[in-house]
Amino acid sequence: MPVIKVEMFEGRTTDQKRELVEVLSRETARITGCDVDSIYVILEDVKKSNWGAGGMLCSDKFPDEKPAMEESGRE
Amino acid sequence: MPVIKVEMFEGRTTDQKRELVEVLSRETARITGCDVDSIYVILEDVKKSNWGAGGMLCSDKFPDEKPAMEESGRE
Amino acid sequence: MPVIKVEMFEGRTTDQKRELVEVLSRETARITGCDVDSIYVILEDVKKSNWGAGGMLCSDKFPDEKPAMEESGRE
Amino acid sequence: MPVIKVEMFEGRTTDQKRELVEVLSRETARITGCDVDSIYVILEDVKKSNWGAGGMLCSDKFPDEKPAMEESGRE
Amino acid sequence: MPVIKVEMFEGRTTDQKRELVEVLSRETARITGCDVDSIYVILEDVKKSNWGAGGMLCSDKFPDEKPAMEESGRE
Amino acid sequence: MPVIKVEMFEGRTTDQKRELVEVLSRETARITGCDVDSIYVILEDVKKSNWGAGGMLCSDKFPDEKPAMEESGRE
Repeated sequence: MPVIKVEMFEGRTTDQKRELVEVLSRETARITGCDVDSIYVILEDVKKSNWGAGGMLCSDKFPDEKPAMEESGRE
Repeated sequence: MPVIKVEMFEGRTTDQKRELVEVLSRETARITGCDVDSIYVILEDVKKSNWGAGGMLCSDKFPDEKPAMEESGRE
Repeated sequence: MPVIKVEMFEGRTTDQKRELVEVLSRETARITGCDVDSIYVILEDVKKSNWGAGGMLCSDKFPDEKPAMEESGRE
Repeated sequence: MPVIKVEMFEGRTTDQKRELVEVLSRETARITGCDVDSIYVILEDVKKSNWGAGGMLCSDKFPDEKPAMEESGRE
Repeated sequence: MPVIKVEMFEGRTTDQKRELVEVLSRETARITGCDVDSIYVILEDVKKSNWGAGGMLCSDKFPDEKPAMEESGRE
Repeated sequence: MPVIKVEMFEGRTTDQKRELVEVLSRETARITGCDVDSIYVILEDVKKSNWGAGGMLCSDKFPDEKPAMEESGRE
């Protein structure tokens, strides 16, 4: 029955989202013992200008590396 | 005082949203006995490519019927 | 596919919760045209000492009428 | 460790968001005694046509004053 | 930077929660390319009497199998 | 109209919560220009055993200092 909500910086590709949904659902079903069909995953793309960390807007804190920061490990 | 958050596939019309706000607020006030003026309803339009069900992205699972699936009952 | 989250003061009875789940699900299915079986409703009981309105804790603002305030309409 | 989520009408400027992140983070750290670096703030811009208050869509309730209502105090 | 929120039936053990946090964080970091240290996971234990599915309270829908339903796969 | 949700470790006192509600509401009203009476603040007390950071349960990561960690700045 779990509902999993992931809030993250915008910029993830459809392939990343597909894998995220597949893996988070499968692992949550395995660990909690629930049926994978009962799991919803909702992804929320958040702009860096709508996210604050340590008291600063992330669009100020990470100005250059817009999508790069989180995606650098993907290529 | 209730705050009601509805996450659903994007594609609802303003008329549907208006009725949703009106009915959910009225019924929640009636059932809980609170004042309808104290109720907030927040609707969140979620893309099928941001929603996973049963381990699959809904944009893969329901590819043809984009808005149709949920709206089929409306005509 | 909707997920409906209701945050409200604690103190609702199981009968009120049952009716809330039934009515909100049925009405949301009717208005949006989705399948009622795809709807999740999650109720969250919030203490008045964890809710602020107009800059005041509700446990300070409504001190006497603990559950009564919202339930007065129920008898 | 707090996570602060603010849902508000769309239309806030980057300057307002920057100040909101800075002030809410600093004050929450001061009051709870936690480290400001551990705080996340997530801002969510909600359209008036996705917000209901008192059983009415806010786009119907406040039709003229679109962003003005909330921003009138800013100039 | 992701924040992952998991709402599920109460009754998960600390071992299950520990594994859930570890696996969901590691897999999300791997898939999105972000730093695992920047990830928060918040688990929310929801009573069956606070969860509705298909218009019914889950405490009515799954009366016998209280924690068993979701944990049956764990032994 | 803002709704502010604060998820934090359990253990805050009523005085801290009162100040949090007062200050976050006042500052949000000042910065966004909205009416303080329209603001709701919902506080959520999260157990360390329900919070993960960096892939670890916080109850494992901060075992000794249960409420102390966040409250150390309060005395």
